[in-house]
Amino acid sequence: MTKDAVNTPFSQGELGQLLIERLDEAARCSAPGAGVTRLFCSQEHQNVLPLISRWMEQAGLAPQLDAAGNFVGRCPKAQAGEKTFIMGSHQDSVIEGGKYDGMLGVALPILALEALKREGVTLPFGIEVVAFGDEEGVRFPTTLVGSKALAGNVTPDQLAVRDEQGVSLEEALTAFGCQPDEIPAIARNPANTLGFLEVHIEQGPVLEQRHHAVGVVTALTGIERHRVTLRGKAGHAGTTPMPMRHDALVGAAEMVLAVDSVLQRTDKLVGVVGKLDVHPNAVNVIPAEVTFTVELRSPERHIRQRGREAVYAAMEEVATRRGLVLEMENTYSADATACADWIMTSLEKACADVGQPAERLFSGAGHDGLAMQALTDIGMLFIRCKEGLSHHPDEAITAEDGEAATRVVMAFLQQLEQP
Amino acid sequence: MTKDAVNTPFSQGELGQLLIERLDEAARCSAPGAGVTRLFCSQEHQNVLPLISRWMEQAGLAPQLDAAGNFVGRCPKAQAGEKTFIMGSHQDSVIEGGKYDGMLGVALPILALEALKREGVTLPFGIEVVAFGDEEGVRFPTTLVGSKALAGNVTPDQLAVRDEQGVSLEEALTAFGCQPDEIPAIARNPANTLGFLEVHIEQGPVLEQRHHAVGVVTALTGIERHRVTLRGKAGHAGTTPMPMRHDALVGAAEMVLAVDSVLQRTDKLVGVVGKLDVHPNAVNVIPAEVTFTVELRSPERHIRQRGREAVYAAMEEVATRRGLVLEMENTYSADATACADWIMTSLEKACADVGQPAERLFSGAGHDGLAMQALTDIGMLFIRCKEGLSHHPDEAITAEDGEAATRVVMAFLQQLEQP
Repeated sequence: MTKDAVNTPFSQGELGQLLIERLDEAARCSAPGAGVTRLFCSQEHQNVLPLISRWMEQAGLAPQLDAAGNFVGRCPKAQAGEKTFIMGSHQDSVIEGGKYDGMLGVALPILALEALKREGVTLPFGIEVVAFGDEEGVRFPTTLVGSKALAGNVTPDQLAVRDEQGVSLEEALTAFGCQPDEIPAIARNPANTLGFLEVHIEQGPVLEQRHHAVGVVTALTGIERHRVTLRGKAGHAGTTPMPMRHDALVGAAEMVLAVDSVLQRTDKLVGVVGKLDVHPNAVNVIPAEVTFTVELRSPERHIRQRGREAVYAAMEEVATRRGLVLEMENTYSADATACADWIMTSLEKACADVGQPAERLFSGAGHDGLAMQALTDIGMLFIRCKEGLSHHPDEAITAEDGEAATRVVMAFLQQLEQP
Repeated sequence: MTKDAVNTPFSQGELGQLLIERLDEAARCSAPGAGVTRLFCSQEHQNVLPLISRWMEQAGLAPQLDAAGNFVGRCPKAQAGEKTFIMGSHQDSVIEGGKYDGMLGVALPILALEALKREGVTLPFGIEVVAFGDEEGVRFPTTLVGSKALAGNVTPDQLAVRDEQGVSLEEALTAFGCQPDEIPAIARNPANTLGFLEVHIEQGPVLEQRHHAVGVVTALTGIERHRVTLRGKAGHAGTTPMPMRHDALVGAAEMVLAVDSVLQRTDKLVGVVGKLDVHPNAVNVIPAEVTFTVELRSPERHIRQRGREAVYAAMEEVATRRGLVLEMENTYSADATACADWIMTSLEKACADVGQPAERLFSGAGHDGLAMQALTDIGMLFIRCKEGLSHHPDEAITAEDGEAATRVVMAFLQQLEQP
């Protein structure tokens, strides 16, 4: 690597402060309501792109919106087709989420590159930073379309899924200014890709309990999602005697408790019934149908499988006893994904370089790495977050931790060697 | 009363068959879809009026559409201003409802009057039969406008409500050929009104279980509705440890079961959690807030009150144990409406006259009597319906029960004496 001195390096404290300012600015690109709501291919998504573009240009990256809704910044070496290391995270949020989940992993590596540029460091490989369009899976019943596109794994049925307004993912991308039929062309060449690093808030309490600013991720948890439909019988809520009812909501309530009970008693398994809709949903009509989602997560496949079986058996018992018709459909499934040893080791060395302890921990959340591991080796750096809070308006990190993580990434990039 | 012999009386069996035929014919005035859909001031409402008009004329009644969308048939004595007894029910249905809820109580009393006319019976008082425009409250967020108009209780804000297409009730009435500003003029004089009788399917299973064709209604149930808000804490569904969660949906599920448990074990109390909404309602977010409705019905106020207290205590226990914030707000409350003793007694005598058992039972549903009791004494005659089914395309009565009920009404009218 070579050094020159075109710019003034950032002073101690300046990086963390600038990072927080940029994330505050991005958080203003949000739908109304508490916290941040920025869904895939929304007006808010459109609004945040000029900010990211400006950051990228200041870091020496050329920004571009791709066919899958990713906003990609490339350095000249990456543009020239040299071997490239990819960093990034997702721009989207959950409904009324926080400022850091996702966008931190976009803003921080760009800032690290700007800081290296100001220090006159030129990396001996290409770099691109990607703001994936969708990781949260809130708007569409699918997710990771951006990272799957880089890995060459977007299927036509994924583009055909529709949001609650009936808009297909393909239509939404087209309206956003993308060309979905060009998605196959943006798949990266594995032989030309060095690896993928995502920086993300921990979304859990471990680093805070240990008083560590950052942590090195060993694996991403496996996730599966199911859609449950429960059919009872509508009826007049005033004249149908209580014992004669087949109330789908009463049945669903028992099932929600049964799912929770399985989760509470099983180690290394978490999950949630996050979405539930009642039909016809009227004050004076016995609920005829309820649909709800069941999500299960575990870093171990057999634990997830046993949890799923226990949940289904409990739901089936309720449905039979109450005379309800039960259907459960798997809508998403991803096994746990291991981070590459050489990236973990490099991150640990980088932490040591800048004086940060480097505890290893696994991620209970899924991330774009789930899709990127089909393309290349992956790694993740976690940053301590306040009270382990995430998917919440009060999500927070400190400027000090943001600075520490930025300096870890700078060190990581400077000593990066593929195995 | 006097008798002559202008017509041939209906033979045994003929009345029931004709009643079923007329209701089948009326059911063809329906919007597309399963069962009967005939909303207030709709094309289907318009289409059914010539049928009712023909039935009325055959019974010696002069038909007329009034200012509030009621279709009213009056005998000559009623037209001449003599004291008048009112019968009737509503022409409208729910969406994909049945043939009998409402229209039975229009067709049956008209047929009873035609049968009396054929038998040469002249009643010593005036009679009118009303096909109220709207009782189900489906098209507009208000109901009973027709019966409230007869009682002189239509308010300007009721006429200002709008349907989902933005059409106000006043505009709909005008387009239907009514003059809404004449509504105050159609209020009946209480001193000139003898009483009100509605014939209706039971919409419940009691008469079927007892093998009775008809039943005498004692009261229309009291109803109260509450809106419950339950606040927990949002969080990431993968990274928040299960024991640290305050999941509003798990709490709400326990509450739905607690409400059901109170209702299942309390005699003369029914109810439902019919509407439930989850916030933010996303597959991978711990539910932060759930709102739901609790409706309770009982003909006895103290039973409703004790039920409400039991429901609230159970919900409060759940909220406290789970660290959730609970609010319950009363949104609607209507005490039970008693049927007049003298009408119940007269109906019982009429049942005895025609050899029908006359069990007393209360109505778990609301009816036009709720509005008519402000004008005059009310009574209701229930007819057994198949499997207690109502608000459903499979709603059914037998021709035999229809005939029995018609003969009860004929006997009732012939021996009617106000107290």
